[in-house]
Amino acid sequence: MNAPRNLPVDARRLWDDLMALAEITDPVRPYTRRSFSPRFLEGRAWLAKRFAAAGLAVSIDAAGNLIGRLAGSEPDAKTIMIGSHSDTVPSGGRFDGTAGVIAALEIVRSLRESGVPLRHAVEVVDFLAEEPSEYGLSCVGSRGMSGKLSAEMKAYTNGSGERLDAAIGRVGGNASVLDKPMRNDIAAFFELHIEQGIVLEQRGIDIGIVTGIVGITRLEIVFSGSADHAGTTPMNLRRDAIVAAAETAAAIAAEARGIAGRGDGHFVATTGVLEVAPNAANVVPREARMIVDVRAEKCEAMEQFVEILDGLSLDAAKRARVERSRFARLSDTMPVPCDEALRDQLDRSAQSLGLSAMPLASGAGHDAAFVASLAPAAMVFVPCKEGKSHTPEEWAEPEAIAAGAAVILDAVRRFDGESPARKIAESPA
Amino acid sequence: MNAPRNLPVDARRLWDDLMALAEITDPVRPYTRRSFSPRFLEGRAWLAKRFAAAGLAVSIDAAGNLIGRLAGSEPDAKTIMIGSHSDTVPSGGRFDGTAGVIAALEIVRSLRESGVPLRHAVEVVDFLAEEPSEYGLSCVGSRGMSGKLSAEMKAYTNGSGERLDAAIGRVGGNASVLDKPMRNDIAAFFELHIEQGIVLEQRGIDIGIVTGIVGITRLEIVFSGSADHAGTTPMNLRRDAIVAAAETAAAIAAEARGIAGRGDGHFVATTGVLEVAPNAANVVPREARMIVDVRAEKCEAMEQFVEILDGLSLDAAKRARVERSRFARLSDTMPVPCDEALRDQLDRSAQSLGLSAMPLASGAGHDAAFVASLAPAAMVFVPCKEGKSHTPEEWAEPEAIAAGAAVILDAVRRFDGESPARKIAESPA
Repeated sequence: MNAPRNLPVDARRLWDDLMALAEITDPVRPYTRRSFSPRFLEGRAWLAKRFAAAGLAVSIDAAGNLIGRLAGSEPDAKTIMIGSHSDTVPSGGRFDGTAGVIAALEIVRSLRESGVPLRHAVEVVDFLAEEPSEYGLSCVGSRGMSGKLSAEMKAYTNGSGERLDAAIGRVGGNASVLDKPMRNDIAAFFELHIEQGIVLEQRGIDIGIVTGIVGITRLEIVFSGSADHAGTTPMNLRRDAIVAAAETAAAIAAEARGIAGRGDGHFVATTGVLEVAPNAANVVPREARMIVDVRAEKCEAMEQFVEILDGLSLDAAKRARVERSRFARLSDTMPVPCDEALRDQLDRSAQSLGLSAMPLASGAGHDAAFVASLAPAAMVFVPCKEGKSHTPEEWAEPEAIAAGAAVILDAVRRFDGESPARKIAESPA
Repeated sequence: MNAPRNLPVDARRLWDDLMALAEITDPVRPYTRRSFSPRFLEGRAWLAKRFAAAGLAVSIDAAGNLIGRLAGSEPDAKTIMIGSHSDTVPSGGRFDGTAGVIAALEIVRSLRESGVPLRHAVEVVDFLAEEPSEYGLSCVGSRGMSGKLSAEMKAYTNGSGERLDAAIGRVGGNASVLDKPMRNDIAAFFELHIEQGIVLEQRGIDIGIVTGIVGITRLEIVFSGSADHAGTTPMNLRRDAIVAAAETAAAIAAEARGIAGRGDGHFVATTGVLEVAPNAANVVPREARMIVDVRAEKCEAMEQFVEILDGLSLDAAKRARVERSRFARLSDTMPVPCDEALRDQLDRSAQSLGLSAMPLASGAGHDAAFVASLAPAAMVFVPCKEGKSHTPEEWAEPEAIAAGAAVILDAVRRFDGESPARKIAESPA
């Protein structure tokens, strides 16, 4: 651990908690704490104890989120919420999500220890199942809290046939009441997260102040041709599905580079999945299926790209004499801009702490994108090593996380001091 | 079955035998008689009985080929060999290979019944394991007969660890003696096969007289990049393996169309296998592996194409900032032209029988390509439905197969009459 700067949080305590939580892992594939699993519940029991030890009132809300609450001096004031998630992908890292939860805990501990009480209550939240879960859904807890967990989603099942609503019940929630936004009392939401990218590291910047969370559209494209003999079928009589898919995948990268190059917000497109059938050396491919992941900070760029992709994949199919048998949106989330006032607050806080900061879009989805429908929301990114994430090699420096926590702590203090602290009863739901 | 023309073979008997052999199949996945399997040996036992019933002397040679021999009137004359293979791919058809074996049997039966003995001995051959076997090798029997089964190949093993040489022994051969060409007594070799293509059917031609068997080069190309986050990694910082593979696969099809369009012999290239890792929607592909199957009637076209592919795949890797970590020939066979004198013979025979014929390259490999190193070899293609092969829907009309058999029978008679019937002792080995 580097020598800590003069920060208003205890960097050592933050780091020790983070490493202690990381130890609660499936031992054969560190670092794994899959949502809803016994290991996950073990992690949460540890967290609940740490929340309680920090003087927080611990509860689990109807969406299965673990909450530690510190009361404010003005009982009718809204709540400042800080948090992230403690679940991991299989063989994930020790920072994605957990850094935000433990940073939130450290912020509240530091606030309490400062002896200067806040007017607003502050809650530390561990959102349930932010990573794609065994039930085929991500951001379960933040969707539930914001009234965006549909009846259809509640009926999703895992490999054993357990329904998601039953699983939420099993971890202490009550999915039957999750049919509308659960909270109208949140004054502001802050989330710290590792960048999962290489921009801050490459530029040597301490803090990324997130401008917005990209919208994500997943498209499935299937080309269907004819499985002919690779030796005997003349080139001009083929209906080769891979040719259409290859032309499309190449064009996706070229078009995405073009849009990203315009500099009008974060834009990326990836052909992460490509599967060929029958996938035999001596057979002309009958089918090629691809999944394209498109992420845009601006809605217009997304819609423009999907339209271009629609046209160019149809053209590729026509040239290869195959059918484009599927072009479907598997999922579609809108970009969510972060709250401008909170971003300004975070920027001033970074400046006052002597930390360098830059605006940065989030190319990954986060719980903050759902909470943003309930309240002003903002995110702080901290640098991580080589952009690696969702892998055991994921790494962020103790000092970097402490710096991010300090910026949020400072912003929370400023917000608490400047906010009109409107009563809950006066606010729109 | 169509009304048979006035052909010198018994079309009904040929067809009935073909259908009877097809019934000897793995019942859960017709039509399957995998080489070296109990079902394959059951098929061979049935064939041996039919060979014997036709008055042939039955044996299995050192390479595991099943042979039925009809002696000629001149004991020192060389042997006319006719045959193909009785093994199938998994879930294959009833015609690929078997049509050639049963046609050969019918030809010899008809010759015998005509009462006009031949000067040359005639052998009907069922070559061992023409299809890719569980030991990772095709054309085992014809390679063995022609001295092209290397020590390395003999040591190939199947999934249970059995060596190929042991398996050859198990079916009645003796691989230890297969270190040089086994036969120097073959005067001519004929093979009937379904076209496995759509040219004869589309043009309404009865007989394809094969000009040559393509050379086949299989290339493995691997691109290695970096598995980065699909959301957070900017387009210009990616090392995306799929982009290089997609550009390469698209270029392969375009280049192959160009070479094939020159009309200088059969030429095709296929990207039949493309595998992406980790193949996850939200991860930039770290690796893309492709297998390219290239088939050419002319050596020069093959070499030219491989050179082009080498260059364009390197360029694609460079553009995508990935490494082309592998560019290797997995296998490489030379094109084999069919014997011109035998082709002329077959053409005259077709004409004399009132059958339409055209020259046609074989885009698939066949036992004839190996036998051609021992003796003049020729092939007759008969039309099959929609070019389908290696599938239960594979189909050829009874009349079409009988027509092909009749052409070979007629050519055998002419060859027998015209040949100097040189003694074996006088011929070079």
